[in-house]
Amino acid sequence: MTEATSSDARVSITYCTQCRWLMRAAWVAQELLQTFRTRLGEVALVPGTDGVFRVELVRTPGEEPVLLWDRKSQGGFPEIPPLKRAIRDAVAPDLPLGHTDRAGSA
Amino acid sequence: MTEATSSDARVSITYCTQCRWLMRAAWVAQELLQTFRTRLGEVALVPGTDGVFRVELVRTPGEEPVLLWDRKSQGGFPEIPPLKRAIRDAVAPDLPLGHTDRAGSA
Repeated sequence: MTEATSSDARVSITYCTQCRWLMRAAWVAQELLQTFRTRLGEVALVPGTDGVFRVELVRTPGEEPVLLWDRKSQGGFPEIPPLKRAIRDAVAPDLPLGHTDRAGSA
Repeated sequence: MTEATSSDARVSITYCTQCRWLMRAAWVAQELLQTFRTRLGEVALVPGTDGVFRVELVRTPGEEPVLLWDRKSQGGFPEIPPLKRAIRDAVAPDLPLGHTDRAGSA
């Protein structure tokens, strides 16, 4: 009975509540969890303000977070396939991502 | 520019991936974040196995988690209104919950 996840990797999605980006953030969270399942320890939805939309990965507790997306510097919102590829490369390098792996997919 | 949330309270929702409860867990997460916004520091979706569906609250980092729901002991799934009332009482006692506060609501 191992209920807990086997991974310590944590993705956090910080979103602006004023901008009503909760559903968008929850969609991204579900995309990631659907793909990585227990290869991720958790995906946290972090309410923020002032136009923030930021995705960060901490592979092991205590490690510096890796910034995967920041609306402030990159503008707009992340595409799911490159986000999945970046997380796959960091936490589950052997996991095939199907069509998300095809060259040239967004 | 205070992007970050003002609260340190954390809710975690641990769900069974084998049972396909991700969407259910994400729905509960969105219900809580829609109501509490930045009064919660984060809601984490934690993938698990073996039929787990557990909701926990940590009001301040380092505190013992408060168990709000455990499918193993309580059976079935939590209702949203009592979950919101328990979290409100712990982290935002002055927050009115509208019809969720009415006596006798599930």
